[in-house]
Amino acid sequence: MSETSFPTDPLQFLQMLLRCRSVTPADDGALSVVSDALAGMGFEVHRLDFGPEEAPTPNLYAQLGQGRPSLCLAGHTDVVPPGEGWSDDPFAGVVRDGRIYGRGTADMKGGIACFVAAVARHLKQNSLKGTLSFLITGDEEGPAHFGTKPVLQWMKEQDKIPDFFLLGEPTNPSALGDVVKIGRRGSLNAVITVPGVQGHVAYPHLADNPVHRLISALHELTARCLDEGSEWFAPSSLQVVSVDVGNKATNVIPGEAQARLNIRFNDRHSGESLASWIKEVVARWAPKASVSIAVSGESFLTEPGKAVQQLSASVKDVTGREPKLDTGGGTSDARFMTHYAPVAEFGLVGETMHKCDEHVGVQSLEELTQIYQHFMERFGV
Amino acid sequence: MSETSFPTDPLQFLQMLLRCRSVTPADDGALSVVSDALAGMGFEVHRLDFGPEEAPTPNLYAQLGQGRPSLCLAGHTDVVPPGEGWSDDPFAGVVRDGRIYGRGTADMKGGIACFVAAVARHLKQNSLKGTLSFLITGDEEGPAHFGTKPVLQWMKEQDKIPDFFLLGEPTNPSALGDVVKIGRRGSLNAVITVPGVQGHVAYPHLADNPVHRLISALHELTARCLDEGSEWFAPSSLQVVSVDVGNKATNVIPGEAQARLNIRFNDRHSGESLASWIKEVVARWAPKASVSIAVSGESFLTEPGKAVQQLSASVKDVTGREPKLDTGGGTSDARFMTHYAPVAEFGLVGETMHKCDEHVGVQSLEELTQIYQHFMERFGV
Repeated sequence: MSETSFPTDPLQFLQMLLRCRSVTPADDGALSVVSDALAGMGFEVHRLDFGPEEAPTPNLYAQLGQGRPSLCLAGHTDVVPPGEGWSDDPFAGVVRDGRIYGRGTADMKGGIACFVAAVARHLKQNSLKGTLSFLITGDEEGPAHFGTKPVLQWMKEQDKIPDFFLLGEPTNPSALGDVVKIGRRGSLNAVITVPGVQGHVAYPHLADNPVHRLISALHELTARCLDEGSEWFAPSSLQVVSVDVGNKATNVIPGEAQARLNIRFNDRHSGESLASWIKEVVARWAPKASVSIAVSGESFLTEPGKAVQQLSASVKDVTGREPKLDTGGGTSDARFMTHYAPVAEFGLVGETMHKCDEHVGVQSLEELTQIYQHFMERFGV
Repeated sequence: MSETSFPTDPLQFLQMLLRCRSVTPADDGALSVVSDALAGMGFEVHRLDFGPEEAPTPNLYAQLGQGRPSLCLAGHTDVVPPGEGWSDDPFAGVVRDGRIYGRGTADMKGGIACFVAAVARHLKQNSLKGTLSFLITGDEEGPAHFGTKPVLQWMKEQDKIPDFFLLGEPTNPSALGDVVKIGRRGSLNAVITVPGVQGHVAYPHLADNPVHRLISALHELTARCLDEGSEWFAPSSLQVVSVDVGNKATNVIPGEAQARLNIRFNDRHSGESLASWIKEVVARWAPKASVSIAVSGESFLTEPGKAVQQLSASVKDVTGREPKLDTGGGTSDARFMTHYAPVAEFGLVGETMHKCDEHVGVQSLEELTQIYQHFMERFGV
């Protein structure tokens, strides 16, 4: 193996990734940038492309070493669309004033670049003990049906489940060292459609106003305090995101009304218990309503054990700060990993993720690389 | 005056009116059909076209005789659009199986035809005592800004306000003789716009969900029983006709929510008292909300005195039935007339008004003509 095949510079590696226009479901070579680097360091790389033959989702699993301890570094190369208004080409990897700009710098090509650089440095300085692996998907921002989920299934079948997953999502709200994520709340979406009987407002007794039934149901649903939070979780929260009738007339009682809501819930609830509750409340106010519910993830928690302590200590080694152990925020592929092994998440600062002019500090790339290095050492690979 | 200039046949006169395509704001000669007939019977006809010069609203006031008693017959020649799906041309005046079909047969060219035929018969059989007048507008179904309202103002200025208005709107729900209308409920429209702070559903503490504020306000507004009705009025009724957010995302708390509502209110309320109440409730739940309120008419009542009794007796003369005195249903131009003189409404059966295949029975035209004749006799003109 030549010296040059060890990509120890996270900035340079991140620029290579940024220049691939991998807006979900596109890959544009992003996954090959990772697999080439890992293969160059001696990893056995498996491309695992699942889903429809005409447009499969690109994924990879890469492994170096055997046996325990076994650590898997996980992430995604796909990014959300750049949108309008950028100061620079969002796919150029422009560096200016100590920052690198581009779609995916924070979420989470930056995290992958630091993983790769940390592994390169670790392998140059140490002989690997146990197993080091990568699980990288090309669809985390999209439907995610054929990404991390079937790769985990494949890993299970191949007996490749690690002792611990470290996911490199941007967990820090404003500065590196803020937060290690040890779980996530669950998420449930509901669509409530209430049929009524259309009629003239002057003759309400001949009509059945679906808006009134819906308001009553939504009022009861929003009035309930779901919980006050739990040891590691913020309170669960129900948000009605839209109510739509679309009636243009002022003198007509409409024939249908619809609402959509989302619940982010902690470990005091399950998707099923909340679904039953919603259906029961709606049925009481609007017996003819239809309620369609999709639970996109249950809540989960990685009880803060040895590996989480090692991760926190590594953050402190480099930043001098004690990260908060947290379970807030949106969902991530950690919701799939938790079914197989403990998982924690730590990455860059997410302040500009999904926004225009997404960027991270160049210094934070170096620091995160060092944190990942420290963690591998403490973890014992 | 020749015999033929007295249009004593309501069916024939109605067909002439139906053949004018007078969908608001179009007139298509409809008002001239009326003015020609009235002029032919000796009425002094005033065309009173108000509104923008390029597209004035056609109206007429016609008068025969002088002094008291003074009766004004009122109505409108404009009709709502026919819509789709008619069995016949809605402007042909087709007669089949004892019914005449066409847009406006019930609402209310039929009523005008019966007025004209009744007056023709009355004048042939009696010498007029006092004053008989007509107030016919070409815009009752539209905005009605330049219709009955300014004509009344003109009549006031000309000292032509009658002792009593009889408006020929289709007041009977299913059979001739059902209902004499002696008032109407008021009508108020409100638009409530609640601003919020947009945000991600996973971070509700950083957002301010306008939908929740709106739901709370609407719940309080709809939960109140406005009243149990009053002597001559049905209970007031508040109907939320639309709620609209238009948020397509499932994970975004929207930045604004809007609702529209209508109140039909009786004499226990005024537009102003209800407007204050709505604003107070909304301000409590959503201090930053804007509430836009339009009162399209206050409630009014013609206390059932001598003229109403004469009208009821005339209905009974012809149909054998005692009409119910009622204040229900939608608004009409009676809401303007009530400010000048007592007004009652009686006309054809409104079951098919504004619908496809609008029609009335040919026999009911003859009966309504006789009712109007009896009323003029009892009234003493």
